[in-house]
Amino acid sequence: MNIYDFGLKGPKTCLAKTVNEAVDSANEIGYPVVLKISSPDILHKTDVGGVRMGLLDESDVRSTYLEIMRNAKDHCPDAKIEGISIQEMIQQGVEIIIGLLQDPQFGISIMFGLGGIFAEIIKDVAFRILPITAADALSMIHEIKGQSILNGYRNTNPVSEDMLVNLLMQISEKGFELRETLEAVDLNPVVVWEDQYRVLDGKFILKKHSDNKVVNLTPNISYLNKFFTAKSIAIIGASDTKGKVGNGVLDSLLNHDYQGSVYPVNPGHPIVMGVKAYPTLASIPDTIDMAVMTTDINFVPDVLADCKKKKINNLVIISGGGKELGGDNSLFEDRIRKAGKDNDVRIIGPNCTGVFDGRSRVATFFQTQDRMSRPKDGPVAFMTQSGTVGIAFLEDAHAFGVRHYVSYGNRVDVDEADLLASWGDDPEIKVISMYVEGFENGRKFLYAAREVSSRKPIIIYKSARTEHGAKASASHTGNLGGSYQVVQGALRQAGVITVDSYDELISATKAIAMQPEARGVNVGMVSNGAGSMIQAIDYLSELGMKLPVLSQSTLLHLQEIYPSYYITHNPIDVTGSGTSDDYITGIKALMEDPNIDVVMPWFVFVNIPLQQDIIEKLGALNHLYKKPILVGAFGGEYSIRMMDGIEAQGFPVYHSVCDWVSAAKAISWRSQHILEKNKIF
Amino acid sequence: MNIYDFGLKGPKTCLAKTVNEAVDSANEIGYPVVLKISSPDILHKTDVGGVRMGLLDESDVRSTYLEIMRNAKDHCPDAKIEGISIQEMIQQGVEIIIGLLQDPQFGISIMFGLGGIFAEIIKDVAFRILPITAADALSMIHEIKGQSILNGYRNTNPVSEDMLVNLLMQISEKGFELRETLEAVDLNPVVVWEDQYRVLDGKFILKKHSDNKVVNLTPNISYLNKFFTAKSIAIIGASDTKGKVGNGVLDSLLNHDYQGSVYPVNPGHPIVMGVKAYPTLASIPDTIDMAVMTTDINFVPDVLADCKKKKINNLVIISGGGKELGGDNSLFEDRIRKAGKDNDVRIIGPNCTGVFDGRSRVATFFQTQDRMSRPKDGPVAFMTQSGTVGIAFLEDAHAFGVRHYVSYGNRVDVDEADLLASWGDDPEIKVISMYVEGFENGRKFLYAAREVSSRKPIIIYKSARTEHGAKASASHTGNLGGSYQVVQGALRQAGVITVDSYDELISATKAIAMQPEARGVNVGMVSNGAGSMIQAIDYLSELGMKLPVLSQSTLLHLQEIYPSYYITHNPIDVTGSGTSDDYITGIKALMEDPNIDVVMPWFVFVNIPLQQDIIEKLGALNHLYKKPILVGAFGGEYSIRMMDGIEAQGFPVYHSVCDWVSAAKAISWRSQHILEKNKIF
Repeated sequence: MNIYDFGLKGPKTCLAKTVNEAVDSANEIGYPVVLKISSPDILHKTDVGGVRMGLLDESDVRSTYLEIMRNAKDHCPDAKIEGISIQEMIQQGVEIIIGLLQDPQFGISIMFGLGGIFAEIIKDVAFRILPITAADALSMIHEIKGQSILNGYRNTNPVSEDMLVNLLMQISEKGFELRETLEAVDLNPVVVWEDQYRVLDGKFILKKHSDNKVVNLTPNISYLNKFFTAKSIAIIGASDTKGKVGNGVLDSLLNHDYQGSVYPVNPGHPIVMGVKAYPTLASIPDTIDMAVMTTDINFVPDVLADCKKKKINNLVIISGGGKELGGDNSLFEDRIRKAGKDNDVRIIGPNCTGVFDGRSRVATFFQTQDRMSRPKDGPVAFMTQSGTVGIAFLEDAHAFGVRHYVSYGNRVDVDEADLLASWGDDPEIKVISMYVEGFENGRKFLYAAREVSSRKPIIIYKSARTEHGAKASASHTGNLGGSYQVVQGALRQAGVITVDSYDELISATKAIAMQPEARGVNVGMVSNGAGSMIQAIDYLSELGMKLPVLSQSTLLHLQEIYPSYYITHNPIDVTGSGTSDDYITGIKALMEDPNIDVVMPWFVFVNIPLQQDIIEKLGALNHLYKKPILVGAFGGEYSIRMMDGIEAQGFPVYHSVCDWVSAAKAISWRSQHILEKNKIF
Repeated sequence: MNIYDFGLKGPKTCLAKTVNEAVDSANEIGYPVVLKISSPDILHKTDVGGVRMGLLDESDVRSTYLEIMRNAKDHCPDAKIEGISIQEMIQQGVEIIIGLLQDPQFGISIMFGLGGIFAEIIKDVAFRILPITAADALSMIHEIKGQSILNGYRNTNPVSEDMLVNLLMQISEKGFELRETLEAVDLNPVVVWEDQYRVLDGKFILKKHSDNKVVNLTPNISYLNKFFTAKSIAIIGASDTKGKVGNGVLDSLLNHDYQGSVYPVNPGHPIVMGVKAYPTLASIPDTIDMAVMTTDINFVPDVLADCKKKKINNLVIISGGGKELGGDNSLFEDRIRKAGKDNDVRIIGPNCTGVFDGRSRVATFFQTQDRMSRPKDGPVAFMTQSGTVGIAFLEDAHAFGVRHYVSYGNRVDVDEADLLASWGDDPEIKVISMYVEGFENGRKFLYAAREVSSRKPIIIYKSARTEHGAKASASHTGNLGGSYQVVQGALRQAGVITVDSYDELISATKAIAMQPEARGVNVGMVSNGAGSMIQAIDYLSELGMKLPVLSQSTLLHLQEIYPSYYITHNPIDVTGSGTSDDYITGIKALMEDPNIDVVMPWFVFVNIPLQQDIIEKLGALNHLYKKPILVGAFGGEYSIRMMDGIEAQGFPVYHSVCDWVSAAKAISWRSQHILEKNKIF
């Protein structure tokens, strides 16, 4: 395979068999040209005087043609000479790299970057999953740090973005078509200038053997809703012994908020926790909506057969013992997956904390309520690969509340894409949050996320970012498979809001759950203590947020109302003398100023002039305007009481400047992403 | 001024007046050479055929000499020809940039980076303040991202680090000598290869007028101790009116922990807060150790005169109204500064929250105790430019306690360096923490910090990082003055531990205050929930920390004790079944493993098998070993109770994975810094 199979342009080249043909070709190509001996028998052309560069005119070409022919005959008298190739000499331009690779999580992907040391040392490259749209191509170009080199660096003309977009699209289309065949492609270097490009070198590596894996890309939402609305639940392995998983789950469903029917299944005990128990699932006389499995996963195939008999389509497997232990367990999980399909049962788990629903109060946790509280109902849906992170999220969700929660663990059946598709259509879910360590079917996720993210915000924290999964590869590009850089590209394509820590995940979720999304990145701040705002300004500029000047009318208004020693420009500083009315004046002014998209008050509650009635006064403001308000404060006991009071009024409150600012970025991210798409295409 | 004044090498050059001289020079310089016409009258040498490059041998030089002379005579018959310069032609090597600049905070500084697009687009440069040591020079070289280019990129020989260090030192010495004269220097490019360098272009910009500013670089610790030990305090402006600063300060000293004598000063009221008040400072009959000023700063000169009469050497000015308001106030502060000196009074403030001492309970806060709690005594000293951040710090310091606290505000007298020098000598201070927005006398700080940091850890969070203060400059390097990159270089030289947020400041302080410093960057983790450890691994590798394999004996020991489904390698996973004994086993094993420097348990307290006695069991372990233990956990009410219990046993506990890992970095940072210094020089 070569660059021409991809429809790509290399340097213009003609084969000349006579000196006149050489001159004609050179005239057509344009000077300067390179002449190279063309012979299957001469490997090291330079060594035999078979290459001459930089020929400037006809007479140069004429004499050099003869000289090269003479050299070839002198040095390699027996070589078969096909002629001399006349080649365009590329003298100007910027070197870029374009590559294709098979990523272990996402499949065939494209890389773009500047060539040479930029790609090799700074790793200044961008990735997307194939196929890409023109908007994807453009955002790749804008993503690299060295892009200013393409915009006309050192008095050269800028490189055409249209040309680059078209080139990336063309490679994407062909690469996607050949996705079953290609292992990796390195186009390195590709020289670009103005609206031209030439691929100077291309390396194409084919797959040694096709993986032959049929990957399903369509989300399956069948029966998913039942996990959250189940009115009757059987617990396989329900137990009286404290500390056992089957005891915790039964307690969770039986003794707390859940109002449905609960059926313990335990072959050894006719009564568990004071309730009639059944020896098997099949022996329960009533209709069962969902089964929860807490015993050895080796029994799962039998349980699935029982599910079919009982027309149960929903099984949660809390138990571990699957592929997380390595060895053959992964094969056993394949068996479970197949049995689930055969018996028409959707499976969540194994190795997870299961499901929770804020409305129905279904909760399959084995953590007891004295140790772990459950959040109120709310507009957030959360899915997590890690049970630990899931538990933390639920305990941090009290301010905003959670409707659906799934800890999917080893993910034998229900996966991210299934849940996204299901929750995407639920009008009561305002925001979907995710914690993921690794994708198994990244492409299925990407397609589902892209579809849903155009309708509602998805926030994701993807951890496990150190490189993994990439096979040692003969290609430069291929070596990057499995890296977080590829994941970043995919998430960008998916249109999801990415965060870099659990703290940011909670911060972003809280903001978007409790406040309207922002229409832009322009922040207005007000505080009675400058320190936090000074810190915030550092982070804002790092995150691409802006701190615009206030409109003239806002400034005049504030100058009229405030004492002269208050600072009336952005960020507004009402000083240690600031009262609750001063805050309300500042916040209202920012709300009404067309230059501002996100309103960010920071409070030093310990300053005496700031009255406690700020809680109610702020509360009266909420939802009067269509801009988000994000509140921040440091502090000890008194301050935390004030913060809790404000949060109870419907405002997200942050105890850390970093979290406060990262929330502002998250709540305005979609405005930028959609804008970028609409601006150009 | 030119490169030769700095003793630097440019390309070797000789002026030849005859063809034989030209040949001799070329032979001495070595081929290839460049020939250039030398004439004061010919500006555009290339245009008249006055330059020829790449001459390979004697005969080339001979014929080219004559050709250039001919060209010159043909094109410029009237020009005065001095001869032809024969110049070494630099063909290989890496382009670097070295620059000098006057930073507004730190004065003359040096910059090092790779040339061309690296410096211009990636801004991959390192700064240090002059003069530098060899260790500083080496750490600059190691700091740049593209340093691998210097280590033998693409089959070239590595560039000698000794040569680079010597070159930087030489420029540093000369630059420091000329610090009153130089505005900026750009040596760009400097070509380096193996143990050679040549400066190809040098730009020297002299100061238009000397600043003529005598800057004091010696810390002044006189009377500082009295701020923290004062046994009698007068409050100027003490008031009965709630909400007034003078009311808050008086309440703070009179009605709470402080045991010394308190003297209200108020000309209008003979009794304030039930205590006899005095019309002036001078009218108090008793000895006064310290005065606190809460009234209009315009009275300060009078107060200082009174201080002299009363032999008071310590004044805290809480009041604002200084340079933070702009205008002429800065001049008034100069007057206060001078009056302080004249009257032998040390001044903290104005525009600050003043001082606190954990032992004597001196506390000049106007924030009342019902809103703001004071921490216990402890091994930490903290200084802050922002009162807001200071208050937050004190409320977040309950776990470790604070001995000295200074909020220095506008810093007319007592500054960072004075406090560092004073606290550096106090054996009861284990760690000094700082929050700084901008340095006024950065060099004084640098010298003091470098001296103290070799003896005890200093942690600093420097905010206000967006560029400021740099004058528009004709030099490339000069434009970087005032940037955070220069500050970073200075802090690195100062040997202080830098953090990037307030959260990290608290996290690092807590770790170092409560635990021994680590001897290296090797982390061992243990948890009953994998999610947090997976996240931690991402951050560890970003921060240059390591997660080494455990020693063979540790592995065998753990395999013997733990059930087979626990993961015994690093990070150790005791799974949801982990008990408190399992944790203790793991922690002890990590403590005893020579491969591990920092021990990091993360707890999911809500998992039932983990008993509450982990608090006491951990407590029994503290200080048995000389390695730091940093504890992490997520969670709600129950978990927070457990965390508080563990913190009370002397362990720093973190609620966020980021904070947990950043604390590990901070507690091991000095081991690396000292190691780096000792390894090489």
